[in-house]
Amino acid sequence: MPLNRQWLLDHRPLGPAEASNFRLITTEAPALQDAQVLVRHHYLSLDPYMRGRMNDARSYAKPQALGEVMIGGTVGEVVQSRHPQFTEGDQVVGMGGWQEYSVVDASMAGALRKVDASQIPLSYFLGAVGMPGVTAWYGLSRIIEPQAGATVTVSAAAGAVGSAFGALAKSRGCRVVGIAGGQKKCDYVVQQLGFDACVDYKQFDNPAALSQALKAACPDGIQGHFENVGGMALDAVMLRMNPFGRIAICGMIAGYDGQPVPMSFPQLILRERLLVQGFIVSEHMALWPQALKDLSALVIAGKLSPRESVAHGIESAPEAFLGLLKGQNFGKQLVKLV
Amino acid sequence: MPLNRQWLLDHRPLGPAEASNFRLITTEAPALQDAQVLVRHHYLSLDPYMRGRMNDARSYAKPQALGEVMIGGTVGEVVQSRHPQFTEGDQVVGMGGWQEYSVVDASMAGALRKVDASQIPLSYFLGAVGMPGVTAWYGLSRIIEPQAGATVTVSAAAGAVGSAFGALAKSRGCRVVGIAGGQKKCDYVVQQLGFDACVDYKQFDNPAALSQALKAACPDGIQGHFENVGGMALDAVMLRMNPFGRIAICGMIAGYDGQPVPMSFPQLILRERLLVQGFIVSEHMALWPQALKDLSALVIAGKLSPRESVAHGIESAPEAFLGLLKGQNFGKQLVKLV
Repeated sequence: MPLNRQWLLDHRPLGPAEASNFRLITTEAPALQDAQVLVRHHYLSLDPYMRGRMNDARSYAKPQALGEVMIGGTVGEVVQSRHPQFTEGDQVVGMGGWQEYSVVDASMAGALRKVDASQIPLSYFLGAVGMPGVTAWYGLSRIIEPQAGATVTVSAAAGAVGSAFGALAKSRGCRVVGIAGGQKKCDYVVQQLGFDACVDYKQFDNPAALSQALKAACPDGIQGHFENVGGMALDAVMLRMNPFGRIAICGMIAGYDGQPVPMSFPQLILRERLLVQGFIVSEHMALWPQALKDLSALVIAGKLSPRESVAHGIESAPEAFLGLLKGQNFGKQLVKLV
Repeated sequence: MPLNRQWLLDHRPLGPAEASNFRLITTEAPALQDAQVLVRHHYLSLDPYMRGRMNDARSYAKPQALGEVMIGGTVGEVVQSRHPQFTEGDQVVGMGGWQEYSVVDASMAGALRKVDASQIPLSYFLGAVGMPGVTAWYGLSRIIEPQAGATVTVSAAAGAVGSAFGALAKSRGCRVVGIAGGQKKCDYVVQQLGFDACVDYKQFDNPAALSQALKAACPDGIQGHFENVGGMALDAVMLRMNPFGRIAICGMIAGYDGQPVPMSFPQLILRERLLVQGFIVSEHMALWPQALKDLSALVIAGKLSPRESVAHGIESAPEAFLGLLKGQNFGKQLVKLV
């Protein structure tokens, strides 16, 4: 069996995550048992939720166990199979973790899913046509539910969720305004992702000032918002929300590292009769097929072709992940292994 | 026509409201025109929302105009009528404002409603069977929607909205836990209003400590919460919310006077997949008949008999209102005029 390099969580961070929290080991992949499949990973996905799992705190999911391979989505190729429905050469998406190979019990529902990469880049099944895309789909179509013509906003607009949100909202006839960090990202959001406007939050040091910039980009106010970040962006958006606006919350990256970030103006929930709802996309698996179908169609039609930040080689995973937490990535953060 | 003493809003508060913001004048009630009715007020209602109207800030309702009679709910008796559907002696509820008499155009839909005070005290149509009661009803049955057996909480539990919320939630088979200021109010909430428990927030100076007390009172966590206040109580409740919990927000009294009060732990909205929704009961008039029917039934059955704080005479209105803003009232705050 092949040698397999693996990143384990070695110890939990106190404050910001650090590269030393992880430990790289090399093992030999175990021989397959009945119904198992050996997958060679082509790409690892790096996502903000992983930071939450590194803590030993009460959360919606169990903490990442110490001394075990870091959790994470993967796409790759079947290299050995003892399961009748999988054959060498099949392209598959799963939760293989931060390692080069994984041995998967393919009889477990949802453990491994074959994908057709003939019209869609393989890596997109970790982004636009994967968990981030479905996350955008759920927040837009199940919480925000905007009418055509409504203005909707999204933070971390240049990221994997934000880019999918923009394409989905445009396809519903909405005006879509992004919030992103830096002029380069904002240019990309408008010129390549097709948003109507994008506001660079790094130009502002307080929610009132950011809110003024949003006012210019959203002259009719904001009817729906998808929150990936929390903190100042959310405060600024709330100052511009229209009556009966809806806010879907799928990320609070600002709060993962260190202290909680308060919501500055909760009285606006009352004043504008807002609905604010948090959700976890993995709790809505029944909706994934519909979401993936919609997202695939957008990619195939050329309406969703987000860029990716690709780190190379298994060694690069921790630094790429820490960069993601600091917003240094530009598009979906991946680690390319093959 | 009778002499009529009226409280006008004289100037807007800078910071906390003060008695000097109001001015008392005496006028003669004007002669009635066609379709008008002269009502002699028996009770004025004093409510926290009035503080918001005193500001000249963007809100869900227009600010109270300067130099005009302060807005407010009233119950009273028709003393003259030029409208065919109203007769001298009818008992009516309306929005007569802070004055002894009002002249009402009874042809305006919803301007004046006859009530049957044979089984329900007249003043209750400003509280348990009025706007506060309907507010509790809407939050409970349209936002929180608890199952029987679920634990629900309410802040300002001894107040007009809180007491109605408790009776309604008990009638649905919930465990109901109040939050109130002071042991006397807590005793009343449990012993007279029939809540399962009540926590005195004044015993605690931070949300974590208040949250520990809520843990003892809510051993199965909190599934639904009705927020009348904002600030520390909301923070503490959020720390105890169960997954998929729902929070109805109808008041942010802590924010009316002075600075906004932040929400300390918005990341819990994500972690527990909460729904947080603000509402204004006057935007849901179609539901009032059903709500008033349910509330009347509880009062007539003896299951909702909240106490009232009664100030006497029109002169007392400003001081009674300022006391309400400071939480000095004990039950629905009224001014008795007759």
